[in-house]
Amino acid sequence: VTGLEVVVPPGELLRLGGPLRKDVASYDLKRLIIGSEGTLAIVTAAWLRLVPTPESSQTILAGYPDLSSGIEAIETVVGSGLEVATLEYLDQGALAAAPPVFLGGSNGVARFAVLCQADGSPEETRALTESVLEALTPNALFVHTPTRDDDVASVWRWREGLTAAVTAQHGGKVSEDIVVPFDKLSDAIAGTVAIGERLGLPACSWGHAGDGNIHSTFLINRAKPDQIWAAEQAAADLFQLALSLGGSISGEHGVGLVKSGYLARQLGARGFQLHTGIKQLFDPKGLLNPNKKV
Amino acid sequence: VTGLEVVVPPGELLRLGGPLRKDVASYDLKRLIIGSEGTLAIVTAAWLRLVPTPESSQTILAGYPDLSSGIEAIETVVGSGLEVATLEYLDQGALAAAPPVFLGGSNGVARFAVLCQADGSPEETRALTESVLEALTPNALFVHTPTRDDDVASVWRWREGLTAAVTAQHGGKVSEDIVVPFDKLSDAIAGTVAIGERLGLPACSWGHAGDGNIHSTFLINRAKPDQIWAAEQAAADLFQLALSLGGSISGEHGVGLVKSGYLARQLGARGFQLHTGIKQLFDPKGLLNPNKKV
Repeated sequence: VTGLEVVVPPGELLRLGGPLRKDVASYDLKRLIIGSEGTLAIVTAAWLRLVPTPESSQTILAGYPDLSSGIEAIETVVGSGLEVATLEYLDQGALAAAPPVFLGGSNGVARFAVLCQADGSPEETRALTESVLEALTPNALFVHTPTRDDDVASVWRWREGLTAAVTAQHGGKVSEDIVVPFDKLSDAIAGTVAIGERLGLPACSWGHAGDGNIHSTFLINRAKPDQIWAAEQAAADLFQLALSLGGSISGEHGVGLVKSGYLARQLGARGFQLHTGIKQLFDPKGLLNPNKKV
Repeated sequence: VTGLEVVVPPGELLRLGGPLRKDVASYDLKRLIIGSEGTLAIVTAAWLRLVPTPESSQTILAGYPDLSSGIEAIETVVGSGLEVATLEYLDQGALAAAPPVFLGGSNGVARFAVLCQADGSPEETRALTESVLEALTPNALFVHTPTRDDDVASVWRWREGLTAAVTAQHGGKVSEDIVVPFDKLSDAIAGTVAIGERLGLPACSWGHAGDGNIHSTFLINRAKPDQIWAAEQAAADLFQLALSLGGSISGEHGVGLVKSGYLARQLGARGFQLHTGIKQLFDPKGLLNPNKKV
């Protein structure tokens, strides 16, 4: 995003940036608006800098016997400086919910999976795929490298169907999107399962391993109030886990109403005062998306 | 920059972000600090995400008979989606000041030069260089593609010595770093020379063509007060030109004291009120780098 046109309360039109590649004149007002969840301004136009679609890409799906061998493979990819476009994972519980099509017919075997995408020019994709396979193969139970378009599409359909497959198990779920430093990924994945065990809820996670951004999920039956209560406790424990690992309560989804109250813990007293002061500065009457993102 | 540790007045330590690749929890306080010229907080630590040095690179220097043919070449590079690492230019006045070593011994011939760098793996560099040469060659008087390390180094020494070479002409200069939308680059370069002519000052520019960020420079003798006065007028006219082209008063150098008063024109009344409100919020007693960046 190189620029935004916004309306700020009570009704002034501002242009912040524009079709510009550099601008260090004012404080970065544009960046304040991005991710503000509609609480500071209403965006009426945006200038975007687009990058060309890569010429080619290769999808790679690898299965591992346990969490630690899978994490080791992911750390080898990142530690080798391999700039992959996608570096996703599915833990044991997520794999158990997903259809077993890519796992040799037996979900019982692979207890962790890594889903990776290399892209670039055809030569770059080939070279990068080779290096990624070198990093992913040593501990793997299987490595799947689809080349036909429909085989590639069915891997991504399988991944994209995961939320529905997990939810279907008990009819409901509570899912969060915490972030942790990359070297704490294993703690966050194991910690999610441990929180679920403590509260009597099946738990699993999957997500964006390369970003340290994990979708921790607790399965519930929404007809049972005690399970809803337990899931709320689980979310609270999870946010505490993310913060204790030096992370963030949200990598993508934002704060909204659901995470109300947790932002103050992440920011500390003075940081939260600066956060709410910015809201007050832009929107002193609290007109825009009230009670969100605090 | 993925995270900052800062001290905010009167003396609280805050950690904004950290070794995290994603974080959408709070308003982007980290980005407010970056580029704030020490007016909001004192940075005591930073987390950076480093990218590997490219394996190889190729420097390309091309000369053109005039501004319009040089701009056409630059637009062809950018318009073809060629992702070069560097895309610099030197206008007629800048070339006249620079030693004529790369211009076939005659600065009088080339009145515009483009300096470009392609990098990546050896194959990528080769392929990108080929495409860049295709874009740069048609109108060029000469194209220089040094391959020996010392030849490459001497091109960059030549470029880096430009500020000193330009200053040496009259003993002093006033130089700004406005930004304009990429398609207004030619207007900004010609406009710089026109402002100088109007005020009786030799003027030239060079800079980061790919970013629309140009170092407009007016040559003066600092012993002559009328020239200092004229240079101040020239800078004012230049900021006005940048804003009228939809640009910014600064792409790299910031506002400091020198550009005092121009930020309000760029931001408008409400934008400037938000800008100064943020200063007030972070530093209500005005302790940090007072009177700067306003």
